[in-house]
Amino acid sequence: MPNPAPRLGRPRDSQTDQAVLLAARELLAESGYSRVTMDATAARAGVGKAAIYRRFGSKAELLFAAAVHGMDIEPPADSGSLRSDLRAMAHVIHERLTTPAAREVIPAVLAEASRDPALAARFQSTFVAQERRDLEAIMERAWRRGELSRPVDPTLAHLLLGGPLFVALFVFPHPLDEDRLDDIASVIAAGLIAHTTGPPRSG
Amino acid sequence: MPNPAPRLGRPRDSQTDQAVLLAARELLAESGYSRVTMDATAARAGVGKAAIYRRFGSKAELLFAAAVHGMDIEPPADSGSLRSDLRAMAHVIHERLTTPAAREVIPAVLAEASRDPALAARFQSTFVAQERRDLEAIMERAWRRGELSRPVDPTLAHLLLGGPLFVALFVFPHPLDEDRLDDIASVIAAGLIAHTTGPPRSG
Repeated sequence: MPNPAPRLGRPRDSQTDQAVLLAARELLAESGYSRVTMDATAARAGVGKAAIYRRFGSKAELLFAAAVHGMDIEPPADSGSLRSDLRAMAHVIHERLTTPAAREVIPAVLAEASRDPALAARFQSTFVAQERRDLEAIMERAWRRGELSRPVDPTLAHLLLGGPLFVALFVFPHPLDEDRLDDIASVIAAGLIAHTTGPPRSG
Repeated sequence: MPNPAPRLGRPRDSQTDQAVLLAARELLAESGYSRVTMDATAARAGVGKAAIYRRFGSKAELLFAAAVHGMDIEPPADSGSLRSDLRAMAHVIHERLTTPAAREVIPAVLAEASRDPALAARFQSTFVAQERRDLEAIMERAWRRGELSRPVDPTLAHLLLGGPLFVALFVFPHPLDEDRLDDIASVIAAGLIAHTTGPPRSG
C-alpha cells in the first residue's frame, strides 16, 4: 500500500509507535510474556510485522519498551540537596519498575539478555544509559553545591541507588514503602558525602 | 536395590548430595541451563530420580544449588571495623555470583521464580535468608563496637550491599574489580554510620 508523501512523517510514526506499544501492553496483560508474539502484536496494532521489526529487534525489546514506561521523562528537578535528589530519583526508578507489566517482563528480558549479547547491548545503550545520565546530573549538581568535594562516578551512584531497588523488587522480594525508599536514598547520600570527603580508601 | 542399614546415614546422604551436585554442574557446563534434565542428572550421578526430587523440588532449585557455591561457609570473621567487614562480605557475595555456572543459572532461576511462587519462597528461605544472617552478624558487631549508634535492619544492609553487586553482574554489566568493591563497601559503611547518628529522616 503506497503511503502519501511523509509530510507528517514524525506524527504518523509516533502513532504507529503508540499503536504497537499499546497492542503489546494489551497482549501482555491478556496472555503473559511467553504467549505474546510479534504476529499477534502486528495484527492487534493494525500494522505490518515489518513496521514492528523496524522499531524493535526482537520480542524481548518490544515487550521491554511496552512494559517500562517513563524513560522519556525528565530527570527529577534540583530539589536543593543530594539526599532529596536521590530520594526523588529512587521514586522515579521505583515507579518504572513496579507496574504489573514491568514486573512480568523484566525477569524474562534479563534471562534472555544473559544469552543474547545484542539484546544486552541494546538494553545498556537505552534503559541503563538514560538512567545513568540522570544520576550523572544529580552528582554534578551535588558537586556544584559543594556537598560532594569531588565528582562521583555516575556508574557508582547508579549501582548504589538502582541496585537496592532492583533486588528488592526482583531478587529478595521486599516491600519498598516510602520509609524504605527514604532510608536507601539517605544512606547513599550520606555515604557518598562521607566517601568524597573522608579518609582515603585504605583503612 | 536394598540398602544396608543406615549406620552411616549422614555421610552416605552427603555422598549422594555431592554426586548429584557434581553431575548437575558437569551437565550445566556441557550443555547449558535449558538442556539439563533431571533424568540426565540422575543417570550421570548414578542415583534414582527420586533421590534428586527428595533433595530439590525442581530443576531450577537443583541447578541453583549446583551453581551457587559457598552458602555453607561461615560469614567473614570480625575484621575490626564495619567498613572492612562489609568489604569482606562484598568479596564473599562476589565470589558466589561470578562463577560461570552462577552467571548462567541465576538469570534463568530468577525468571522462573517470578512465575513460580514456591520456587521464589524456597530461594528466599535458603539463599537470601543465609546471606541476610551474615549481614545481621556484621551489623550487630558494628553496633557493639559503637560504630553504629543504633542497630541497623539487616534487610536494609542486605539490599544496600547485595543490590549493587547483583546489578553490576546481571543487570548493568560492569566490571567489579577490587577498587569498585571497596568503593561500594566504603560508601555503604559510611552511609550507615552517618544514617544512625545523623539527623532524623526528614530533611
